[in-house]
Amino acid sequence: MSGVLHGVGLGPGDPELMTLRAHRLIAGAGVIAYPAPDSGESFARSIAAGSIPQGVEEIPIVIPMRAERFPAQAVYDQAAGALAERLRAGRDVVVLCEGDPFFYGSFMYLFGRLAGEFRCEITPGVSSMAAATAAAARPLCARNEVLSVLPGTLPEDELEARLAAGGAFAILKVGRRLPRLRAAIEAAGLGEGAMYVGHASLERQVVAPLAEAPQDAPYFSMILVPGRDPHVG
Amino acid sequence: MSGVLHGVGLGPGDPELMTLRAHRLIAGAGVIAYPAPDSGESFARSIAAGSIPQGVEEIPIVIPMRAERFPAQAVYDQAAGALAERLRAGRDVVVLCEGDPFFYGSFMYLFGRLAGEFRCEITPGVSSMAAATAAAARPLCARNEVLSVLPGTLPEDELEARLAAGGAFAILKVGRRLPRLRAAIEAAGLGEGAMYVGHASLERQVVAPLAEAPQDAPYFSMILVPGRDPHVG
Repeated sequence: MSGVLHGVGLGPGDPELMTLRAHRLIAGAGVIAYPAPDSGESFARSIAAGSIPQGVEEIPIVIPMRAERFPAQAVYDQAAGALAERLRAGRDVVVLCEGDPFFYGSFMYLFGRLAGEFRCEITPGVSSMAAATAAAARPLCARNEVLSVLPGTLPEDELEARLAAGGAFAILKVGRRLPRLRAAIEAAGLGEGAMYVGHASLERQVVAPLAEAPQDAPYFSMILVPGRDPHVG
Repeated sequence: MSGVLHGVGLGPGDPELMTLRAHRLIAGAGVIAYPAPDSGESFARSIAAGSIPQGVEEIPIVIPMRAERFPAQAVYDQAAGALAERLRAGRDVVVLCEGDPFFYGSFMYLFGRLAGEFRCEITPGVSSMAAATAAAARPLCARNEVLSVLPGTLPEDELEARLAAGGAFAILKVGRRLPRLRAAIEAAGLGEGAMYVGHASLERQVVAPLAEAPQDAPYFSMILVPGRDPHVG
């Protein structure tokens, strides 16, 4: 009988924001896999480190940094092959996923390759969006408000159209696009109340009104435009 | 010195989807508060039950059922007063919140009344959206896709305009509006791949293609329209 492929959400970075289930699955794992950069530490592995048992087999999936926007399909083909080998041998595999596995996560590249053949279970996680909202200490959306989650990589015209449609917004993957995004938000009349959050839930977390956001925003940063529900107070 | 007001996300319902931090805060609490119906069990309390210590002071916040759409402001005024009394006496208060506190959560009504005077800390939680996505076993959104979170209560014309704008969708608070929502999704050409999820993560969870959704959808149900990212496979 084949093993089970687990896509396990680790939450935004603070290990205490892992779920009890994520902790249990990792602590009981025989094989774990996780995305890792060319050089340096895997962020996903660093979140889970305190739960990883001795003697576990570790399979880092090395994603070249410049492949961020154009995922290296060959890397995922090879990784899927390595995981399939363990699964066919009847071993469960725990894939460590930053945030929530199916909310803008790279786990889908493994899922797409393996879920046809193997049983796959997803453990949802706290998203970076939820962590950023908590850090900003502003309710994000309420009642009948629409929340739009916008990748910062959207083309200018779609970004403008989305902002014009109203509601609450979370803009992901800010990084170097910060000045352009801030200009669009201000042009849409949404600057007031907008917040910048970098590295939510980590020690190096930065929270600031969007107008005072740092020049060198990291890739893992976010802009929040809370909704304007009149019934909060 | 005043106590700290904790808004603690409990996740979608499965107690194992609480975070380690939520568990720690609840297990160490002296005062907990939670929303409760007129009669019957509090859903929030039921999620946290295994973590609640002996001898804790419990403050149920009774929300009349029909107030769902028009929150009973007087109820929150009174609850905020009761919590403020404990906080002024230097006691921390843990408010149990279904899902994530600032993602369509009623915690904002207490936050709006108390955050001006007291220190408030938010523990983000796994959203019902993340749990429904995990249950549906479909990646929700990826890469440069926009995700729109739509309350099922949106007026017809706004619902149609939002669906026409494209991307991935999560439609919350489905309940009795299911037929109307399904018709709008099908009219927008988004029926294929759309999923229905009721009571995500609980034993009574139901997952079905939208076309086969049950007639009597509960309020805590959701429709997911995953994005169409071509790079998953």
